Amino acid sequence: MHAEDIIEEFPVVTVETNALEAARTLAEHRLPGIVVTDSSGKPYAILPASQVVRFIVPSYVQDDPSLAGVLNESMADRAADKLGDKKVRDVLPEHLTDVPPANADDTIIEVAAIMARFRSPLIAVMKEGKLLGVITASRLLAAALRH
Amino acid sequence: MHAEDIIEEFPVVTVETNALEAARTLAEHRLPGIVVTDSSGKPYAILPASQVVRFIVPSYVQDDPSLAGVLNESMADRAADKLGDKKVRDVLPEHLTDVPPANADDTIIEVAAIMARFRSPLIAVMKEGKLLGVITASRLLAAALRH
Repeated sequence: MHAEDIIEEFPVVTVETNALEAARTLAEHRLPGIVVTDSSGKPYAILPASQVVRFIVPSYVQDDPSLAGVLNESMADRAADKLGDKKVRDVLPEHLTDVPPANADDTIIEVAAIMARFRSPLIAVMKEGKLLGVITASRLLAAALRH
Repeated sequence: MHAEDIIEEFPVVTVETNALEAARTLAEHRLPGIVVTDSSGKPYAILPASQVVRFIVPSYVQDDPSLAGVLNESMADRAADKLGDKKVRDVLPEHLTDVPPANADDTIIEVAAIMARFRSPLIAVMKEGKLLGVITASRLLAAALRH
């Protein structure tokens, strides 16, 4: 079994993608984060779902969650308002997280070794210089425990 | 909508649970990590799936993934061998990650505020001092974008 056999499929999100659309992708696929590529298809950064949540909640409510009650608009309205006119590049964390790469034809054990070495929950699987998909730690465990 | 309406259900994993069983739970539910409780049902730590991967891969292969080919046993055999006689407490990371708590009757916006404030991808939802379940950032986004 090789890396390309167990990749997670997900829609391409680039730094130019609309931030609200990226939030919907995270929500629909229940992803803890998404690999963002640059315009050439190379992995550029991870956009964690928790970072998107930060953008929707006003900072005075983050400082004092008991103030949440004073928000008189819905979360969906806030999300549309805060994310709708932004691009993914505008909502990325200040400190970008690298995604360690593996090759499509690496074995499962090689992918596990890369994941373990970099203590990363996510590996970017590359083929001919482009992002083919990602492998999460739980997906890798599922493949590893199968036999 | 309140915290208890959108919690993720998952099997209880305590520090006493068998580590291989915990690995299977992570794999089957495709969880990036699992909240581990102490014997009283209080959240104690997070066991990330990537940490379990570290336990399966020998350190000399982590140092040089190209050595993966010399392993002449399957990942499943290694996993059974390395995890089967251990408890979850034996495979937890050295530095434990706190899981910020919310109450079962907190609103979605309050949960979002706690998540944003602690930059946490996971919130522990408590009821009467016990862990009821967790809310992930992507689950929260899904609830927030629905209306």
